[in-house]
Amino acid sequence: MIIDVKKNILIVGLGLIGGSYAEALKRYGFRVTAITRSRKSIDYALKKGLIDEGAAEVDPRLVSEADIVVFALYPHVFVEWIENNQRLFKPGALITDVTGVKGSVVYKVQDILRPDCEFIAAHPMAGREVYGVENATSRIFHGANYIVTPTAKNTPEAIETCRELGLLLGFANICELSPEEHDEMIGFVSQLTHCIAVSLMTCNDAENIEQFTGDSFRDLTRIAKINDLMWSELFMSNKKALLDQMNLFLKQFCKLRDMIESGDVDGMREMMRYSSERREKFDIRR
Amino acid sequence: MIIDVKKNILIVGLGLIGGSYAEALKRYGFRVTAITRSRKSIDYALKKGLIDEGAAEVDPRLVSEADIVVFALYPHVFVEWIENNQRLFKPGALITDVTGVKGSVVYKVQDILRPDCEFIAAHPMAGREVYGVENATSRIFHGANYIVTPTAKNTPEAIETCRELGLLLGFANICELSPEEHDEMIGFVSQLTHCIAVSLMTCNDAENIEQFTGDSFRDLTRIAKINDLMWSELFMSNKKALLDQMNLFLKQFCKLRDMIESGDVDGMREMMRYSSERREKFDIRR
Repeated sequence: MIIDVKKNILIVGLGLIGGSYAEALKRYGFRVTAITRSRKSIDYALKKGLIDEGAAEVDPRLVSEADIVVFALYPHVFVEWIENNQRLFKPGALITDVTGVKGSVVYKVQDILRPDCEFIAAHPMAGREVYGVENATSRIFHGANYIVTPTAKNTPEAIETCRELGLLLGFANICELSPEEHDEMIGFVSQLTHCIAVSLMTCNDAENIEQFTGDSFRDLTRIAKINDLMWSELFMSNKKALLDQMNLFLKQFCKLRDMIESGDVDGMREMMRYSSERREKFDIRR
Repeated sequence: MIIDVKKNILIVGLGLIGGSYAEALKRYGFRVTAITRSRKSIDYALKKGLIDEGAAEVDPRLVSEADIVVFALYPHVFVEWIENNQRLFKPGALITDVTGVKGSVVYKVQDILRPDCEFIAAHPMAGREVYGVENATSRIFHGANYIVTPTAKNTPEAIETCRELGLLLGFANICELSPEEHDEMIGFVSQLTHCIAVSLMTCNDAENIEQFTGDSFRDLTRIAKINDLMWSELFMSNKKALLDQMNLFLKQFCKLRDMIESGDVDGMREMMRYSSERREKFDIRR
């Protein structure tokens, strides 16, 4: 193990993800501290033993004691935090994050960061439809993917430490993508799916549909219950890649619609067979 | 109970749904028989005790002994079967079905049916991603919806018997819709969702996406593994209603895309809040 369990880990932003990090890391014996805006969240985390110490404002001592700092904030809040408070970091501190977009964040933070600290970005692909540290549990990481997104500025040691952090958190699969590859992938598998779910849930005002639905509609709209503040920011921070993926989907959906309209059963069946084949491969590799 | 357990129930088409009907009904003590094309399916069902007797061709005795006949066939096969074999029905036999489209089937069958028999249509909203009697289990009905779609030609007794059949099968919710209401609803909650899943699964040829996906993409594409023969027929049998629903979805999806493109964060957030509100109501009432 590269990461020494005697290290201090500070989590900035103690919500669902930050709290789940704390829970997982405390169990290994790390000293885990937290800074978050809500005093209530700190009190809850202390009571539940998720953290050793916490503050509801930027506490210089907590920041300067941390060997590893994990940022679990909205993208723009994260960048502002670095600008305003990075002078407090311990020399040599390793900074990482959980941000769901990378291209618009990683280079910016690496550009402004003090040269004696290093920022290695990561995206834990886990979540729930509920929010806040009260719902935190590291079970959400089990079976999930953890994507490290290094740039040319990162050292092999930082990349390795970040990968190891993913393992300690309990992720099933650790992989590496460039920030650009990450954003394209996330635009497709995560942001596009949320756009589809929201559009499906709001496109027809029919009342009482819950009386008539099977599992399909429930599955496709599970993520339609969505944090509007966070997701609108994520969409705007990955606008180009998301629009590309939305347009790919639109093209295919319209192709299917046109085949239904013109009665092109062979074309429809071919698309369905390709769909089944792709989805099947998907299950096997899980 | 209206339905006497001494009645003979014949199931025509012994696949996943037909087999699950058989399993549920046998347990109540009904005499259950089956006619299906595959000898292997009959042998399996006999061996597993799902049916009392079966045939791999239209057996005049089995048909003429049945008080209730359940058709679990593809729409066009169902209509052809009635045309070719209805002379064999027992006088007074009650005919029902499991067909996923109604407008294009119900009136046709009622028009051609012998006047001494009655057809009352129903749609059990249950399924799996696997097929065949080997996967049959009445557990798929638990918690699910059973829709009866009567017309002016149906007697109150037949409607009541059909509702009771849904209860005996184990459905959680029995409701009634006109064939037209059914098709509109199904176009929205079932067919549109399958169109979306297939389009999503086939719109981007990226390889190895399974390494990078969270649960959202898995949820939205579960039904992308699809029986192309059955679903292309269901789509074509409900073309108008499905196209209407696809166009409603397209309009909303394009509205969201345009808001992302123009940076209309307020509009996006409003749509997301409406989406969350609708989805939440949905969960509560389940």
